Amino acid sequence: MIKKQLRIVKIGGQLFEDEEKLRHFLLDFVALQGSKILIHGGGNMATTLAEKLGYETKMLDGRRITDENSLQVIVMTYAGWINKNIVARLQAMDCNSIGLCGADGQVIVSKMRKKEPVDFGFVGDIERVNSEFIKSLLRQEICPVFSAISCTAEGTLLNTNGDSVAAEIASAMSAYYETELYYLFSKKGVLKDINDENSVIPKINHINYEQLLSKKEILDGMLPKLQNCFAALDKGVKKIYLGDEQLLKNTGLYTEIIK
Amino acid sequence: MIKKQLRIVKIGGQLFEDEEKLRHFLLDFVALQGSKILIHGGGNMATTLAEKLGYETKMLDGRRITDENSLQVIVMTYAGWINKNIVARLQAMDCNSIGLCGADGQVIVSKMRKKEPVDFGFVGDIERVNSEFIKSLLRQEICPVFSAISCTAEGTLLNTNGDSVAAEIASAMSAYYETELYYLFSKKGVLKDINDENSVIPKINHINYEQLLSKKEILDGMLPKLQNCFAALDKGVKKIYLGDEQLLKNTGLYTEIIK
Repeated sequence: MIKKQLRIVKIGGQLFEDEEKLRHFLLDFVALQGSKILIHGGGNMATTLAEKLGYETKMLDGRRITDENSLQVIVMTYAGWINKNIVARLQAMDCNSIGLCGADGQVIVSKMRKKEPVDFGFVGDIERVNSEFIKSLLRQEICPVFSAISCTAEGTLLNTNGDSVAAEIASAMSAYYETELYYLFSKKGVLKDINDENSVIPKINHINYEQLLSKKEILDGMLPKLQNCFAALDKGVKKIYLGDEQLLKNTGLYTEIIK
Repeated sequence: MIKKQLRIVKIGGQLFEDEEKLRHFLLDFVALQGSKILIHGGGNMATTLAEKLGYETKMLDGRRITDENSLQVIVMTYAGWINKNIVARLQAMDCNSIGLCGADGQVIVSKMRKKEPVDFGFVGDIERVNSEFIKSLLRQEICPVFSAISCTAEGTLLNTNGDSVAAEIASAMSAYYETELYYLFSKKGVLKDINDENSVIPKINHINYEQLLSKKEILDGMLPKLQNCFAALDKGVKKIYLGDEQLLKNTGLYTEIIK
């Protein structure tokens, strides 16, 4: 049986800082033919709201520690304001969509991350994706829009890495679809020289990934993203692309991750 | 064809002020057999958050005026924190559920209320309910959980009266189901004497409603609720009950609204 195509698009928080870029991205997303899924985080909005509320944002190694107050702020901004606004805008562009977090239809079940060696608080690592539920939405031509929040089987909402959410959903859906995963972030792709925006590496496979690692030519921030990519390829995802908000247009520079 | 039963339960904000009551209500709700839908507002949480953020809550005739800041607070608390937590808790009680606002699947399409004679801001009056989408969820044995937020066809989220959301959903679903509508609020039912918590009127029909109105024996706050009830009965809703958080147990006092 020939599998149908499914595109999974993860957008970074930087898009929410620029209304024009966001609008153009949504238009490009709506223009994609066939089944598609959108995954988003929330960028600076959670940090700004936490600041306004006088909550201290605790970071460790560039990663947020999610205490009870931060969890509330993240659920309110990601699953509330941002998610519902994206859905409302997609609807207005005639793209029927539905906003989900991991609790809805038990679609992303996770476990709270172990408190050793570092206690990141209400942070989840994904255990399973309810691909049947996602399939039923896609069959009804409804585009699922995921905020990066998962939920334990015991009913605790958890802050979850958006890149991992995208990779796990793409992997789970690969049993039924030819999946393509698009990571949009602030760069045109993986850069060979961080000071040269155009030094995009067109293709990265396992072998030159190891070479780039040993030469320390990849930025620390890119490492978990690339690890997610290789794991997703191993789980059956067909194509993975990294680039900026122009990526869906498929006209400029980008990086493809291959086996 | 014999229609299947569908229960639509609207809960008031007071439940969110009392964790024990909320937990007991959720257990009672989960214990209901057959198809069911939950509708909630957010009670004081939006007001408290708005205060913390230094936003002024503007009221007129006991009704909130929803400016841009209030809308954001309402979407964050109702569709974000409260909605997703209810869904997470229902899941943990083995009740498969999904959290929705009106934008999701274009399930509650509204128009912004006219700015004359009073400009209530981002407030919506419901135009249509996507009953096909709700039916498809119920057929999959998924319980929809609605926050009281609707959306215009142009993609503007709007604060919407929760009692009206419940009445409109119940009315729309009456084409396919034998619908029962339950309004849970802080009283045991409609009281004949506001100073006597047990003076619950067991049944109210059109005729004694008019009598109660003329004798001014019904509290102002109850009027829109009762008007919603009679409109829903006219649109095919079979049974309507009003009571406190014990209502689903069907053991104590309550008010039934009949034609």
